[in-house]
Amino acid sequence: MKAEEALLGISSEKPLVHHLTNYVTVNLVANTTLSTGALPVMAHAREEVVEMVSLASALVVNIGTLDPSFVEAVSLAGKRANERGIPVVLDPVGAGATSFRTATAERLLSELSISAVCGNAGEISTLAGLAAEVRGVESLAGDAKEAARKAAGALGVTVAATGETDYVSDGEHTLAVSNGHLLMGHVVGTGCASTAVVGCFAAAGGADAETVAHALAYFGRAGRSPPEERGRGHLRAPLTRRPGRARRGPGRARRFAAGGGIVRRLNVYYSGGRLRSGAVAWAGA
Amino acid sequence: MKAEEALLGISSEKPLVHHLTNYVTVNLVANTTLSTGALPVMAHAREEVVEMVSLASALVVNIGTLDPSFVEAVSLAGKRANERGIPVVLDPVGAGATSFRTATAERLLSELSISAVCGNAGEISTLAGLAAEVRGVESLAGDAKEAARKAAGALGVTVAATGETDYVSDGEHTLAVSNGHLLMGHVVGTGCASTAVVGCFAAAGGADAETVAHALAYFGRAGRSPPEERGRGHLRAPLTRRPGRARRGPGRARRFAAGGGIVRRLNVYYSGGRLRSGAVAWAGA
Amino acid sequence: MKAEEALLGISSEKPLVHHLTNYVTVNLVANTTLSTGALPVMAHAREEVVEMVSLASALVVNIGTLDPSFVEAVSLAGKRANERGIPVVLDPVGAGATSFRTATAERLLSELSISAVCGNAGEISTLAGLAAEVRGVESLAGDAKEAARKAAGALGVTVAATGETDYVSDGEHTLAVSNGHLLMGHVVGTGCASTAVVGCFAAAGGADAETVAHALAYFGRAGRSPPEERGRGHLRAPLTRRPGRARRGPGRARRFAAGGGIVRRLNVYYSGGRLRSGAVAWAGA
Repeated sequence: MKAEEALLGISSEKPLVHHLTNYVTVNLVANTTLSTGALPVMAHAREEVVEMVSLASALVVNIGTLDPSFVEAVSLAGKRANERGIPVVLDPVGAGATSFRTATAERLLSELSISAVCGNAGEISTLAGLAAEVRGVESLAGDAKEAARKAAGALGVTVAATGETDYVSDGEHTLAVSNGHLLMGHVVGTGCASTAVVGCFAAAGGADAETVAHALAYFGRAGRSPPEERGRGHLRAPLTRRPGRARRGPGRARRFAAGGGIVRRLNVYYSGGRLRSGAVAWAGA
Repeated sequence: MKAEEALLGISSEKPLVHHLTNYVTVNLVANTTLSTGALPVMAHAREEVVEMVSLASALVVNIGTLDPSFVEAVSLAGKRANERGIPVVLDPVGAGATSFRTATAERLLSELSISAVCGNAGEISTLAGLAAEVRGVESLAGDAKEAARKAAGALGVTVAATGETDYVSDGEHTLAVSNGHLLMGHVVGTGCASTAVVGCFAAAGGADAETVAHALAYFGRAGRSPPEERGRGHLRAPLTRRPGRARRGPGRARRFAAGGGIVRRLNVYYSGGRLRSGAVAWAGA
Repeated sequence: MKAEEALLGISSEKPLVHHLTNYVTVNLVANTTLSTGALPVMAHAREEVVEMVSLASALVVNIGTLDPSFVEAVSLAGKRANERGIPVVLDPVGAGATSFRTATAERLLSELSISAVCGNAGEISTLAGLAAEVRGVESLAGDAKEAARKAAGALGVTVAATGETDYVSDGEHTLAVSNGHLLMGHVVGTGCASTAVVGCFAAAGGADAETVAHALAYFGRAGRSPPEERGRGHLRAPLTRRPGRARRGPGRARRFAAGGGIVRRLNVYYSGGRLRSGAVAWAGA
């Protein structure tokens, strides 16, 4: 599903997106979800997680600050999400850094039917069985394109390896989204926020590679700054969309202030609510 | 108590406001409390929650990300707060969305002596036994005025149902605060922040309907933008009050940046530290 | 180690700084760490805390929202950090407010080899056995200089008592850093953020009194505002440092937006990447 179509669907349905996420970037994740047009909810207690996900249109799992009770909540919520047939998006934060994170990501991928996995090159390489260097939750090296393709093939799900260029693969085809990430690493949580947008798009349009790529391209569109602020290098993100704006698509730049760390995305491929040619490019198999 | 009087009391006493709150908007809640002139503290461990609330002048409970150990902490802190006679303000986030949230809100209302309940129309309708639609933590429908009146009557406490217009009732009389909420739903946590302000006012002036209404009107005053920024639609909130400002009342607009979601309140009724006629209006019984 | 040297080391090594911290200011702590040039990671589960700290170059412990499982995680991580010989920085948030916080801070200081303790005057006075008034997590009174000196002597570690003037002592000598804190108390988490910067500096240069003082002076440099914004009283902090900037030192003001609370530091002693004479002054023994 293309971005405009997904955004119209989100805008009209206001889907509930249930996040089981970390406590570092949870506020950014909630605001990103709300500004994309969906309704975020965070609920982790085993007493309610199944009931809450029963109201939701997508489940987004981010293991950034995991512990056993969190993993149990994910397991309960994920099984219910699978029963209901709603998409489950996984951000395997820190897979490759500790064995607990790697094992948890692998366990969730085997126990649950995951729709899409979104991580950085190191995390995705780890899940693909490739060499990787993950320091804490940062990827220091790794071939993102190859990692996405291999992981998608091995796991049988859509996989996005995000970075300066995002690669999204279904194992056969791989899309490249080049909406510019050069300074993105200087704000904590941009990866978590982009996965949240994927969750919103999935709620409206599922999680095939095209939809995931459009979600990332939409998120990347955050980079367009109005001239008067370009000098400050503000990062713009889809965090303050106003009512009715979705009909026209993301036609104006939006501010993205994450804890004071403000950077600018370099390349913008969105225009007038449509992806311009080039925003999502086949990177080949 | 009127806003100016409450703000002067807060400014001179610097009361400690103990929050048992959710992890999504906790930073906004803390900053809102501090900028209102009170001292925020978050402490949830059973090992210290009773001792901490013994230092506090108000307890604010927000069940946005509840679980059993959180509820136990609330129960311990609430009982001690009741023994000490300090106000307890409850934000029943998501009541009506899951049975765990509804049951917890009801349990706290029966176990503890709550001074004021602040929620959206759906949450308050749920507690009043009226039909409501709560999706996650968002209210999608509900007659806020009727809900506030009925809930206040049934529960015997001050009840605020917040929304585009806030309604505050003691069961007999109902106050309307029309400080403009049209875009408020586009920032995560404005409801939590307004409840935090109610907690600060309650610390100085108790939680009768008038004081709660003035707290919400004060929070609503956040909407006044200086002309040069009106075009950006910034939301202003009482988050950056400077020392000594309370003496003159909230005479200048303040910036309210919540995770990059920045909106503007539409109608401002505060001026020169006083509520202008019309800010708090009797909506009738 | 002086600030420029520490910043160059951080910039070239990108050390992982493991934070066991509170959920109120965790996002600010992570962004501050990242913008100082280090990589932040938050991980608390007993299943991974030892493995994660084994990848780290410093451990920063902040007990702002402690509970027993948090303390256990600190104990496990701290012991491993000690085995590896990496610095452990402790922010004893709220010591003096409740016996649980005081006892926990004291327990950690006796069980672990702590490299530096950073707190406000009340917290440090408490650990020094001096009279103090701590309301929640705010210090209301206390002689910061005397507290730092006495605590450092008694505990045998570097101690920083932060406030309008920061005092850093090794028990024999005491440094004063007067980078202006007058309005700092009006943003939640500036103390936590300054401790995070100490952690980053410690990762590169250890935690002797000079290095800690330079870290605080660097953080204090946040106060320089460009003229056009001086009127708004923005606080500037090292939160948006750009790549390559470290080579030239912190030569430009940076924005510090913490939940909308924006204040200005008053005195700036940094210039051209170097501490000007006066920034760090010996306050005498």
